[in-house]
Amino acid sequence: MAVNTPELEKPLPVPGFRVGTASCGVKSPVLKGKRQDLTLIVGEVPCHAAGVFTKNRFRAACVRQAEATLATDAEHVRAIIANAGNANAGLGEMESVWAGQLIEAGAAAAAVSTTAVLSASTGVIGTPFPIERIQASVHEAADSLDANGWEAAANAIRTTDTFAKWSSAEVSIDGQTYTLTGIAKGSGMIHPNMATMLGFVATDAPIAANDLQAMLRRVADRSFNCISVDGDTSTNDTLYLLASGLGLGHAPLSDTSLFEQALTELCIELAQLIVRDGEGVTKFVTIEVTGAASEADARTIGRAVAVSPLVKTAFAGSDANWGRILSAVGNSGVAIDTNAITLLADDVLMFRDGNLHPDYRDADGMAVFARPEFSITLDVGMGDASATVWTGDLTHEYITINAEYRT
Amino acid sequence: MAVNTPELEKPLPVPGFRVGTASCGVKSPVLKGKRQDLTLIVGEVPCHAAGVFTKNRFRAACVRQAEATLATDAEHVRAIIANAGNANAGLGEMESVWAGQLIEAGAAAAAVSTTAVLSASTGVIGTPFPIERIQASVHEAADSLDANGWEAAANAIRTTDTFAKWSSAEVSIDGQTYTLTGIAKGSGMIHPNMATMLGFVATDAPIAANDLQAMLRRVADRSFNCISVDGDTSTNDTLYLLASGLGLGHAPLSDTSLFEQALTELCIELAQLIVRDGEGVTKFVTIEVTGAASEADARTIGRAVAVSPLVKTAFAGSDANWGRILSAVGNSGVAIDTNAITLLADDVLMFRDGNLHPDYRDADGMAVFARPEFSITLDVGMGDASATVWTGDLTHEYITINAEYRT
Repeated sequence: MAVNTPELEKPLPVPGFRVGTASCGVKSPVLKGKRQDLTLIVGEVPCHAAGVFTKNRFRAACVRQAEATLATDAEHVRAIIANAGNANAGLGEMESVWAGQLIEAGAAAAAVSTTAVLSASTGVIGTPFPIERIQASVHEAADSLDANGWEAAANAIRTTDTFAKWSSAEVSIDGQTYTLTGIAKGSGMIHPNMATMLGFVATDAPIAANDLQAMLRRVADRSFNCISVDGDTSTNDTLYLLASGLGLGHAPLSDTSLFEQALTELCIELAQLIVRDGEGVTKFVTIEVTGAASEADARTIGRAVAVSPLVKTAFAGSDANWGRILSAVGNSGVAIDTNAITLLADDVLMFRDGNLHPDYRDADGMAVFARPEFSITLDVGMGDASATVWTGDLTHEYITINAEYRT
Repeated sequence: MAVNTPELEKPLPVPGFRVGTASCGVKSPVLKGKRQDLTLIVGEVPCHAAGVFTKNRFRAACVRQAEATLATDAEHVRAIIANAGNANAGLGEMESVWAGQLIEAGAAAAAVSTTAVLSASTGVIGTPFPIERIQASVHEAADSLDANGWEAAANAIRTTDTFAKWSSAEVSIDGQTYTLTGIAKGSGMIHPNMATMLGFVATDAPIAANDLQAMLRRVADRSFNCISVDGDTSTNDTLYLLASGLGLGHAPLSDTSLFEQALTELCIELAQLIVRDGEGVTKFVTIEVTGAASEADARTIGRAVAVSPLVKTAFAGSDANWGRILSAVGNSGVAIDTNAITLLADDVLMFRDGNLHPDYRDADGMAVFARPEFSITLDVGMGDASATVWTGDLTHEYITINAEYRT
């Protein structure tokens, strides 16, 4: 059901990192040996690290513990351990115990201190976390550590994703070429509870930890925070960035803007892959908001359009329903002048000056909305700021997956 | 598809009011004579009036003009004129011209001043408003004015509603009995754009215009603003309240609390009828939030649960998916302590103290969620405020109506 999935090139190894996976049977012991469900990413040197997490008030223990680690030890992180199959969430006091044991397992396997390990868990909520199955098999992940382990890791973090998601880039700064490789899994929400959006990016670029955290927040706002499958965010959503460059002896970047641009593009690509693989999605729609008073306003407007069930069903029905789009803009809460809005679907001008454009023909709009991939451009005429949001349609398949999965 | 529709008793006439309808063929001339689509509510005396309107930034001309009238002339309103079949919205400058002509038609038919008329329009957006068809037939509404015209009016304001919605009540205050009668139409969103929620309530209770406006806002917050079919609000949503009592010679109420209680109950009943008739709705779910720090917080939490596609598909699938409900609470933006939340489905205790309750059995939750009508109770343990929100499920039928209607 995925939309225009690109053929992904092999992920690039990143100097300073090795990656391994294990099959623990986290979700069920019968899956032991059948699929990989544990990922270990190890930095050979102390890495600078940053993390961006779910804004949901229900935050799993792995998120809370990672925030604490990043507050004190963001300059010498050595490993990420991540499991699929169980989110270790909604479990009361045992949640923190199990999350701590997961970190201990990762620390032992990577032979580093527990304060140098970040964890992430994804899968069902409210089911006791089978830490003993992970403890029994984590050595497989240590044994398989390899600079070329990224594709295996992209597969091991999957839950309901229909394909593995990764992206790599190289960026040249001051005559030195640095590598970025990221893997991600989708935020499809599935029985019996919700899954989780995870993204892990590694680089050998040399960046101060403080800069890294501020940068990752900006990048997340322009990538993972600009996608919407169904408007819900999970208890465990996590994006980590690890940078090994300083530990490898590179001099700190004096100007991080080129790196930030490369990181943004990489995260946008990962985020778009998640939308393309969204539950029941048959269309990939780019919503571009321009002329806003601020970037935050632009993003708020774009997200309001992206999450509206009426807009998303119109996408599904190939119905060029400009009224629903404008109504969603009007409902965004952002102050707008409805007479200043210009609306295009791809290059078809639909609405301007408070009215349908006189040259607009419904058939032209319908032709755009029938495409598997198209853009909605909204200029709100209030300023110079812009934002882009990516979304899919709302289909019967989404209802089937989410209403009928439990049998 | 409506859920547990109650058999409605006949609406009561309200002293001081007569109601008439006409068939204008607003949506299409071929419907002329086939269905009523124009409603005229006439006060025989100057009425105190109040209005609550959509918060969508796209506001149709009828809404903008009514706000202006209520700002200056709320103490002597004489009529409401309302049409179905065309929302007179998204039409640029002509919108105000046509809205003004609709008011002129109502004023002429009721033989009152244009400054004493409020209007409302519902139907398709972006289609030129056929004012001439209304002008040609508005006399039918004047000719049919009758104290018992409320049921006909409840039918004439329908668009996609599957049944007409009204409610009446009597309230005794200081030895005098007053009547309230209200009619409403649903906010189902339909091709080619969105329809509109309309509610008109008349009473012979004697209440100062200022008190009336403040009261109607409070009442709307506890009734129409507490329902959600799909989270979208339209360009034309309107609730009017007309009170004839002072013009009929009653002394002003010294204490309006009994009246406000009756008005709240009546508006809740109308609002619930709209949910029961929501597009594709097969379940009627009451979400009760208690223990919040403020009523606004409680309502925000309730609405967050009520609009979540994951929660609504779980309702559709009879899936007692407590994780999705808690995640929606966590996404509401309200500060909560996740360990302080108690969650019940009807009388089944599901979640408490940060964990599933040890006595909870999935089968018990599933039995509740399988009912056509049930309650979700969320105590958030932060204070004493509460709110109740009513919602439906999200089904294939909703997708079919909204994605596939255009053929």
